Amino acid sequence: MRLDQDCLGELFVPDDALYGIHTLRAVHNFPITSEKVNPVIIESYLQIKKAAALANQQANNLSAQKATLIVSACNQLLFSSNNDDFLVPAIQGGAGTSTNMNVNEVVAQLAMRLSAKDGHTPVKIHPNDDVNRSQSTNDTYPTAGKMAMIKKLTPLKDALAKLTSTLDDKAKTYAQAIKVGRTQLQDAVPTTFGRSFAAYAAMFRRDAQRLKATLPALETVNLGGTAIGTGINAPAGYQQRVVPLLNQVAHLSLTQADDLVDSTQNSDAFTTISAALKTLAVDLTKFCNDLRLLSSGPQAGFNELSLPKRAAGSSIMPAKINPIIPEVVNQVAFEVIGNDVTTTLAAENGQLELNAFEPIMFRAILMSETHLANAIETLVTNCVAGIQVNEKHCQQEVAHSSITATILSPILGYEKTTELIKTAIAEKKSVKELVKQQHLLAEPLIDDLFSPATLTNSKPATAATAKTASANH
Amino acid sequence: MRLDQDCLGELFVPDDALYGIHTLRAVHNFPITSEKVNPVIIESYLQIKKAAALANQQANNLSAQKATLIVSACNQLLFSSNNDDFLVPAIQGGAGTSTNMNVNEVVAQLAMRLSAKDGHTPVKIHPNDDVNRSQSTNDTYPTAGKMAMIKKLTPLKDALAKLTSTLDDKAKTYAQAIKVGRTQLQDAVPTTFGRSFAAYAAMFRRDAQRLKATLPALETVNLGGTAIGTGINAPAGYQQRVVPLLNQVAHLSLTQADDLVDSTQNSDAFTTISAALKTLAVDLTKFCNDLRLLSSGPQAGFNELSLPKRAAGSSIMPAKINPIIPEVVNQVAFEVIGNDVTTTLAAENGQLELNAFEPIMFRAILMSETHLANAIETLVTNCVAGIQVNEKHCQQEVAHSSITATILSPILGYEKTTELIKTAIAEKKSVKELVKQQHLLAEPLIDDLFSPATLTNSKPATAATAKTASANH
Amino acid sequence: MRLDQDCLGELFVPDDALYGIHTLRAVHNFPITSEKVNPVIIESYLQIKKAAALANQQANNLSAQKATLIVSACNQLLFSSNNDDFLVPAIQGGAGTSTNMNVNEVVAQLAMRLSAKDGHTPVKIHPNDDVNRSQSTNDTYPTAGKMAMIKKLTPLKDALAKLTSTLDDKAKTYAQAIKVGRTQLQDAVPTTFGRSFAAYAAMFRRDAQRLKATLPALETVNLGGTAIGTGINAPAGYQQRVVPLLNQVAHLSLTQADDLVDSTQNSDAFTTISAALKTLAVDLTKFCNDLRLLSSGPQAGFNELSLPKRAAGSSIMPAKINPIIPEVVNQVAFEVIGNDVTTTLAAENGQLELNAFEPIMFRAILMSETHLANAIETLVTNCVAGIQVNEKHCQQEVAHSSITATILSPILGYEKTTELIKTAIAEKKSVKELVKQQHLLAEPLIDDLFSPATLTNSKPATAATAKTASANH
Amino acid sequence: MRLDQDCLGELFVPDDALYGIHTLRAVHNFPITSEKVNPVIIESYLQIKKAAALANQQANNLSAQKATLIVSACNQLLFSSNNDDFLVPAIQGGAGTSTNMNVNEVVAQLAMRLSAKDGHTPVKIHPNDDVNRSQSTNDTYPTAGKMAMIKKLTPLKDALAKLTSTLDDKAKTYAQAIKVGRTQLQDAVPTTFGRSFAAYAAMFRRDAQRLKATLPALETVNLGGTAIGTGINAPAGYQQRVVPLLNQVAHLSLTQADDLVDSTQNSDAFTTISAALKTLAVDLTKFCNDLRLLSSGPQAGFNELSLPKRAAGSSIMPAKINPIIPEVVNQVAFEVIGNDVTTTLAAENGQLELNAFEPIMFRAILMSETHLANAIETLVTNCVAGIQVNEKHCQQEVAHSSITATILSPILGYEKTTELIKTAIAEKKSVKELVKQQHLLAEPLIDDLFSPATLTNSKPATAATAKTASANH
Repeated sequence: MRLDQDCLGELFVPDDALYGIHTLRAVHNFPITSEKVNPVIIESYLQIKKAAALANQQANNLSAQKATLIVSACNQLLFSSNNDDFLVPAIQGGAGTSTNMNVNEVVAQLAMRLSAKDGHTPVKIHPNDDVNRSQSTNDTYPTAGKMAMIKKLTPLKDALAKLTSTLDDKAKTYAQAIKVGRTQLQDAVPTTFGRSFAAYAAMFRRDAQRLKATLPALETVNLGGTAIGTGINAPAGYQQRVVPLLNQVAHLSLTQADDLVDSTQNSDAFTTISAALKTLAVDLTKFCNDLRLLSSGPQAGFNELSLPKRAAGSSIMPAKINPIIPEVVNQVAFEVIGNDVTTTLAAENGQLELNAFEPIMFRAILMSETHLANAIETLVTNCVAGIQVNEKHCQQEVAHSSITATILSPILGYEKTTELIKTAIAEKKSVKELVKQQHLLAEPLIDDLFSPATLTNSKPATAATAKTASANH
Repeated sequence: MRLDQDCLGELFVPDDALYGIHTLRAVHNFPITSEKVNPVIIESYLQIKKAAALANQQANNLSAQKATLIVSACNQLLFSSNNDDFLVPAIQGGAGTSTNMNVNEVVAQLAMRLSAKDGHTPVKIHPNDDVNRSQSTNDTYPTAGKMAMIKKLTPLKDALAKLTSTLDDKAKTYAQAIKVGRTQLQDAVPTTFGRSFAAYAAMFRRDAQRLKATLPALETVNLGGTAIGTGINAPAGYQQRVVPLLNQVAHLSLTQADDLVDSTQNSDAFTTISAALKTLAVDLTKFCNDLRLLSSGPQAGFNELSLPKRAAGSSIMPAKINPIIPEVVNQVAFEVIGNDVTTTLAAENGQLELNAFEPIMFRAILMSETHLANAIETLVTNCVAGIQVNEKHCQQEVAHSSITATILSPILGYEKTTELIKTAIAEKKSVKELVKQQHLLAEPLIDDLFSPATLTNSKPATAATAKTASANH
Repeated sequence: MRLDQDCLGELFVPDDALYGIHTLRAVHNFPITSEKVNPVIIESYLQIKKAAALANQQANNLSAQKATLIVSACNQLLFSSNNDDFLVPAIQGGAGTSTNMNVNEVVAQLAMRLSAKDGHTPVKIHPNDDVNRSQSTNDTYPTAGKMAMIKKLTPLKDALAKLTSTLDDKAKTYAQAIKVGRTQLQDAVPTTFGRSFAAYAAMFRRDAQRLKATLPALETVNLGGTAIGTGINAPAGYQQRVVPLLNQVAHLSLTQADDLVDSTQNSDAFTTISAALKTLAVDLTKFCNDLRLLSSGPQAGFNELSLPKRAAGSSIMPAKINPIIPEVVNQVAFEVIGNDVTTTLAAENGQLELNAFEPIMFRAILMSETHLANAIETLVTNCVAGIQVNEKHCQQEVAHSSITATILSPILGYEKTTELIKTAIAEKKSVKELVKQQHLLAEPLIDDLFSPATLTNSKPATAATAKTASANH
Repeated sequence: MRLDQDCLGELFVPDDALYGIHTLRAVHNFPITSEKVNPVIIESYLQIKKAAALANQQANNLSAQKATLIVSACNQLLFSSNNDDFLVPAIQGGAGTSTNMNVNEVVAQLAMRLSAKDGHTPVKIHPNDDVNRSQSTNDTYPTAGKMAMIKKLTPLKDALAKLTSTLDDKAKTYAQAIKVGRTQLQDAVPTTFGRSFAAYAAMFRRDAQRLKATLPALETVNLGGTAIGTGINAPAGYQQRVVPLLNQVAHLSLTQADDLVDSTQNSDAFTTISAALKTLAVDLTKFCNDLRLLSSGPQAGFNELSLPKRAAGSSIMPAKINPIIPEVVNQVAFEVIGNDVTTTLAAENGQLELNAFEPIMFRAILMSETHLANAIETLVTNCVAGIQVNEKHCQQEVAHSSITATILSPILGYEKTTELIKTAIAEKKSVKELVKQQHLLAEPLIDDLFSPATLTNSKPATAATAKTASANH
């Protein structure tokens, strides 16, 4: 055990630990959950430390020796998958200071050990004076958070792309598959599954665009602003270099905010991405609800879709199969909507020059991104890709649906058509049959009107139909 | 009283009423609140009815006589401020059908009465067959809702523009007004009120951009899609004309959606504008919280800002003045955040070809837009425009603040500086004084370091300062 | 016009107005909405002013003459339905001070005018010194808010009682009406509509209990605590009398809080009733969703329930009928859940000795109570009372449902039963038929097992059934 | 590897694994998060399996041999801390079936292995037919969820008890510590820290009561209801015994619901506990916000409280100390409020005979309980217990506060007092001084009025004061 100290006193730290007293205090102070800071935040932080060391060196604000050691330590930590030294709990007070200090301590300690290799006299590397040089938690922490969110968007956008292309395929496959439309859960005029799948795809395509539209704000970082965005203690040479260097290190396209004070204290970039994730969650809920409803049955339900069977559904009811994949997606969506409220609260409680509640925002947003990406992946692979339309059943439903008589309304009028439908239902006839019996229109016109193409408006009405309709007005 | 009928039976309607049986049933069915449908929705609906009549006429789908009468009726209703006939409650079932039918009934009845003027035989105008021709609630209602939201954005954006320009003015006025920065409510390095006001302005400028970014989705309407977006019963000639005509009638820039089925059933345009309004609400909360905190006192508080006095603050405590304007804005923000949850729930409960819960979404969003616009107006006029910084008090606070010693950290190191601060506090001295006493640095350097410009990093550090700092590393 | 003044200056007030300068300032300061303070808050406030005048008089803290005039004024205002003088907007800053002062001003002015009747010299009644004597907004406003919430609970509980008793009736009527059970929207073992209606009734009965359980906290008021709950400026004689007198005036059962400081600053009574209202909203959503689903169709849906027809459902689709009553209730529920978030935010933003955001909480809660009461009323009257079960259709569904084979599982084992169901579906036979064909069990036992009573477990299994089942283990 | 099968096919399972095919499918189907089902749910499930085996045995529905083996397996699993075989992800579809089947599989496999010890022929124990006998996921899963919530309430209530008793201590210690009261963040009449701490304690004591009040609903379980609450396949002898036996096994006080159908499908018990947790979160937010505000400074803030120093606060600003413990509690509170929205959504999406979204509800509620308990623990230990009031500073603030003149208002009138305060502020005098100078009242009366005891109303006003006050009216 070695003794480490801070402005409050001293604590023993295990000899082989790279972390120091600040990390240890965080562990003691925040025993809320065993969940640690998200590794993608740690990774982003290490990239920042590396870029900062390089920028300091180039600005003559840090010796080449120290800079090189810090960069080496960062590289080693970035390369290794082992992060046993990053112990700070995900849910933490202190506005991210513990996370930053954990990284500062680990990098400093490792850099010193590297300097002492091969029997050299160790170079003293200070967590604050060297690793954190020209930086503050106030600029590095939100920068690391934004980097993490940007990185986590990639798998989410990939998953969404798979979903939309799978839906496009389904739309093509079932372009002609007629089905009863439903508004307010009541039978409405017919449509096709082709149109339904296409409509879902269009919605999710907009979700992808909305996520993309959150990028510019996330890519605008306050790195270089140090304590409260004034940039105190960061020399101009460093300030100009650090973000370009970070882009090289992390392969990102970050920009330094024009107004670093604004960028340090305001949280709208976070509420905005959270809202985009929430909208995606709402859209997924609607889609999964539809899937569950359309596949209800198999005997006493809608039974229009068959979802792939993924598990025995019941411990007591043999052979029961449930829509478990949409169900799990529904639940992720509920979680994401809850996370948006958490983020909203954290954002609206920000005060003056800093929002102290970024840790819970970052956790909520990163969790939403990850869970949504995973949920969409399983939705595509284990459900949507294998969906089958029960076409025959759907055709029969349309054939028996008296609401198709709507097609007569422009010709016969709303009231006459209402009467026809009532009679049809009372006499258990189809409306088409009834219209023929009553010789209300010429047979070919009736057949044309009640054809799938006319009912679903998939082709322009024939001249005859159009003429008859307009003749009445 | 005249007798009106629908497919369920008959009801008596007052003779002079323009509305009919559907409106009356809505009044009976939905006795939730005395609040009627928002007039801006009614206005938009009348514009749609007018455009639809013109489009139908041009497509030879409605006689010129009927079209002209419908247009005249719409014009008269749009011109008059009287809307005693629009009785449908704001909170309604039926996915907007009652609202649409109320408009259809009123326009049809008025058109008939206009035709009967000067002793002419009245022309029979049917609410469904004529006024609603080529339309459905499913396309007109969301279109009217979107138009209303677009219209309500204008005063909101105007109010936001006033807010940002007023903040810009304050930023200029107080560019040099130094103040103690605060992170996590604890004293931090200094900044200026100029920077603070500028940071608020930057945030609200982004809010304005976010609101603007919701426009393309709102401007994409499903008008022409009729029942479920398939466009059944709407001839092609009508479909192509109706949106351009509506733009002429309403002076808007709407586009017909490429996928009318998608546009009919999906609600993401609504969740998106709601989220943008929520983000604005969060930002207003943060701003108003800061105003209330910075003006706390007048004696036992921060007392850095003086807000204009707008009312005697207490019924019992004489001369007490409270920050009532930020308080009312805070509360509007809480309402808007709640409205966003309402909208989220309504959106995620949409099913299949339609979302039946648009009425509550529209109410929530229009209420948020209106209340936010009004709140920001009173915030600018009755508060922000008259804010004064208590500059002397703020300067004294900075002078007494030992955290300004942060400026020494790159030169003396984090640990030595920590020690200095502790000593300064214990001995009730200023750190600057202490550094001079201990001859740690040359006096001119000390003076330069502790100058407002250096402390707030408002000018590049002098060569001497920079040199000394970097020399240590 | 007369000139009125406060600590900020002077304003002209219409001569016949009873209100004064504070009210006028509120109108200028809070132009958010045309909605005024809820009349039930005004009524409660007038009852408080009356009780306070009596208590002050009895404590020798107000002359009998003034007390009598104030009481007369309150009586007249309570009796009249006219409240044109209560102009303060519902959404207001100032923690209710404007509402209190509006009442103080109106009562004082009216009391003075009453004193001047018949040519008497008017008695000067001061809004603060006399009407507000021994009071503060900090105690009267939350007390009035709680009184209003208590009063609004009565119609809500009445509506709930109607709902539960109507559901009880339905449960009796349809006690034997068998139906397919559904878990996860997939066919499950059968149940009866009797059980379903009873289960809804049980749920809503608990909602009634939960609402009742919020009463003790609402009935605990801080009246007598004056400014911040310390009771400054309220003599002991007043403090002891005012709540009992208020109970006499308002026919309520209020108690003075033991800890008036706590009761003044903490908002948990409000978050608690809001949460109970939210739970009711969630329960209503579930119920209405079920009604809409079970009545889906009429041809291509579940079609198990027929809801009363309340309106023509579509402007374009003739004869379409929609579940508009459950839909409006769904939407009220979404509003209430949003209102709960608003209340949550207002509560969590309370600071130190007072929560300044009670106005928006009171508005949200009272709106939720009122809308819920009205929504349940229309739900009972226009929907639930007239629901009919399509019994024949439901019986056929059960007869065709292969999941009824679950009843065989304890006898034949889970795996064998799974196999049977698969065969039955493949061969389009009923499982019962198949078991008979395969002679797996004795015919009488099979008939007993597949009888409605056994399937729905409405009677104890016959000895034979039970014996056979247990014999296998 | 051994081959396991279900109704969909076969999968290989590691030889030494106790779990089977259903568990494996869940792992494949739900790759959302690495978080497993909460161990306290697994523990509760094992207790249910044990109780069910005993109840089945006693009802002659399971052989003694099998029952004994199942009980032994459960005991062994309950005793061991190893749960490597419980692999089902916390976020799962299937309404808990995977969790139940995971337990069924593990218990069955272990029971078989136990039977084969010492060379005996292994007894075949079937996961569904034996371990799950007389049960369904529909009754065991919500029962296990409720048991887990009950268990998790204990540490939470313990933590709350510590918090309230610590606050009681502080209230005693600081009973006489006068401070400026504040309403709407503006200086108000004085109070004491004794009263403040007592008010917090009272609030949290109600939270404890509210949590306790959720118990009866949680203790009412649907165990015995099997599939949809009808109790199909559960013999009466089992149904009557299983809950009492479970109480013995788990040392709880559960009751079987009167209406098992209701208890199976309705989620109000869950929304209710979630709401109680949310109210606690709101109360904690308010308390922690107050702590952070009152300890703001140390120089340019309220500086009335000193919180224990728990960590160096800044990586850049030496000697800065932040209120990190209240901050972490704030963030847990935001998380809990978000979790309540998640639970609300999951509850309102329940359909017909079951709520399929219990897994996300259980996760949200158990996480809230755990995080709140841990947060309150660190709040008490690391913050509240060590809070110190800066008494001298607080006294000075009261002495300088002109709002104390409120005490004069009943004697001199509201308007005269207003004038005095204005003069005092303008002339930078204390009001007390001014009143003496102007000889407005007798000196002893003035001294008595401005004494801490009178100002904070801690003792009855002296006869003289009271008399003077009432004499004016």
